[in-house]
Amino acid sequence: MNRDAPRRAGKAWYELLSVDLLYYVASYTVLHPFVAWIVPLCLRAQLTPYNHRAFLFSVGYAAFLTCVFIANGISKILAYGKPRKVDLGEEVIVVTGGGGGLGLFIAQVYGIRGASVAVLDVKSTNEDEVPGITFYKCDVRDKNALAKVAEKIEKELGPPTILINNAGIMHGKSLLDLSCEEIEKTIQVNLLSQFYTIKQFLPGMLEQGFGTIVTVASVLGHLGCANLADYCASKAGLIALHTSLAGELEQSPHPSAKNIRTVLCTPGQMATPLFAGVQTPSNFLAPVLEPVDVAKQIMKMVDAGEGGEIALPLYSRTVHFTKCLPAGVQWVVRRLSGMDRAMVDYSKVAKKREKSR
Amino acid sequence: MNRDAPRRAGKAWYELLSVDLLYYVASYTVLHPFVAWIVPLCLRAQLTPYNHRAFLFSVGYAAFLTCVFIANGISKILAYGKPRKVDLGEEVIVVTGGGGGLGLFIAQVYGIRGASVAVLDVKSTNEDEVPGITFYKCDVRDKNALAKVAEKIEKELGPPTILINNAGIMHGKSLLDLSCEEIEKTIQVNLLSQFYTIKQFLPGMLEQGFGTIVTVASVLGHLGCANLADYCASKAGLIALHTSLAGELEQSPHPSAKNIRTVLCTPGQMATPLFAGVQTPSNFLAPVLEPVDVAKQIMKMVDAGEGGEIALPLYSRTVHFTKCLPAGVQWVVRRLSGMDRAMVDYSKVAKKREKSR
Repeated sequence: MNRDAPRRAGKAWYELLSVDLLYYVASYTVLHPFVAWIVPLCLRAQLTPYNHRAFLFSVGYAAFLTCVFIANGISKILAYGKPRKVDLGEEVIVVTGGGGGLGLFIAQVYGIRGASVAVLDVKSTNEDEVPGITFYKCDVRDKNALAKVAEKIEKELGPPTILINNAGIMHGKSLLDLSCEEIEKTIQVNLLSQFYTIKQFLPGMLEQGFGTIVTVASVLGHLGCANLADYCASKAGLIALHTSLAGELEQSPHPSAKNIRTVLCTPGQMATPLFAGVQTPSNFLAPVLEPVDVAKQIMKMVDAGEGGEIALPLYSRTVHFTKCLPAGVQWVVRRLSGMDRAMVDYSKVAKKREKSR
Repeated sequence: MNRDAPRRAGKAWYELLSVDLLYYVASYTVLHPFVAWIVPLCLRAQLTPYNHRAFLFSVGYAAFLTCVFIANGISKILAYGKPRKVDLGEEVIVVTGGGGGLGLFIAQVYGIRGASVAVLDVKSTNEDEVPGITFYKCDVRDKNALAKVAEKIEKELGPPTILINNAGIMHGKSLLDLSCEEIEKTIQVNLLSQFYTIKQFLPGMLEQGFGTIVTVASVLGHLGCANLADYCASKAGLIALHTSLAGELEQSPHPSAKNIRTVLCTPGQMATPLFAGVQTPSNFLAPVLEPVDVAKQIMKMVDAGEGGEIALPLYSRTVHFTKCLPAGVQWVVRRLSGMDRAMVDYSKVAKKREKSR
């Protein structure tokens, strides 16, 4: 994808080890209720008596995991509603910023799987190479151009039912180094464009009776970060937009509103060209995400017709916990994470990259 | 201020009772370390023996409160640095959106107290009436107009050292009812303007060697809310901007950077014209704030030369805790709070108000 981007190849095995990998393995083994029930079954097969400590403990543990599993399911249905049925053959998918990185990956997979995919991007890509995808050259900042493209998509593919709002840019400069125009561009591309696309495609979804709107934000929207003020502000705005939209759909008297799912994705640093040059504070606690892993999670939720939040890697699920800590402790955690120093070399790399193009 | 705005007068005493009032009273009585130490002193005056249960308990309680008090102080200094010296006679204060509500109140008090106050607002106010305040008619969305006004302020009053970024608007419409122009206006006035003012006045503060930047956001920036998507997105952006700015100042090699304080204010619903017509979900748990109370807290922190966060009313300090709960429980809390239904009548009232003007 980009020679600057970090990759899995050529690394020692321990460099790939991360909290996320350990949790992933645990979630399919010691933390899985089905696996946990195998232990008491084996114990019974060995004729361990019912009142034996090992048996009681293993049953208790398995029962606990099962309760958590069920509670989690109920919690999700309460919060995000029952999953809607998704038949990819009937869905028209719009991906903004689909000319590269995460967006292109999602578009490609859906294209191969037989969905009608419309990719909106400022860059024009050779559409012959990718099956199932139609590319529309469109600057999402321009709401009039978007309206025209939307009309074209509806004519050529049908009314969009899945909207993946993914377009994003990043400057990686300090507030004083950023020009006002750069700040405006970030806010327009990352934040305002999602207002435009939602306003453009939501009425069609309500008419169709179903839909899914995916907001690709960032964990930095929760956190803020030095030398990324414009980016963080735009992503924080997206998180609020997602919550507001979910609240509106729930309160809406429209009969189809309850059948529209909203997905918020707040990934950490990804190995895409956008993030090349960002110093990774800790590869073990905060591993760099491969876009394929983020895409898989998004597609899994979209395919299941579920709404919800996707927070990757694991540390991004803990941001709310850290915000409950006293200010001084938060400061220490922030210093240790090194996040405010992560962007120091970014602008140099970005400049070099621009020259090499 | 406005006849639609809720007021304290004409209410039964129990209607004024709120969690915040109870906590305020407790913080100066049973939760105050000084008060707590009076109890063991009184017990000793009554010749209660040192090993008496009542004496031991009261000492333990007082010691606990004292530890919390000291830890809190250390935590604040760690997180926000040592307070800077503030001499109002030397400070030039810029208040955006100072033509009414919270901004005007802060400007008036600082004007009376002898500071040089520059008020920026789109509305022109009769400046003869208010001592110490100079009004500058300026649309904060217009960065060129702002640059000109900034030059004027520097000539007439001196370089600004305290910036109170308070300008804000609200539409209170659903995403589909909002026009693209309204969304852009909200983002420009509430969010982009603060980027402009910071970029405009921060270099002067660095040159002066000290300064304070106050960001007036909203608790809704943390929460998101139906029919306020644009407002919530802009306020969420401000929270991220504040954090990013604080991070940059801390990492900055500039010798004055550590002497610039950042204050984030995330108030709930205020009794200002902006919020008139908003249904208050619960007056006991989430009381409507008087702008004077918010202004007092902001000025207290600015006067002390401290940085930090002001979260009023009390419930707004708990938003991070609720975000740690499982999604289903969060949904129940949100439903019970009634926040997503709070704006239903707002647009009607807003229309009526516009007509009556």
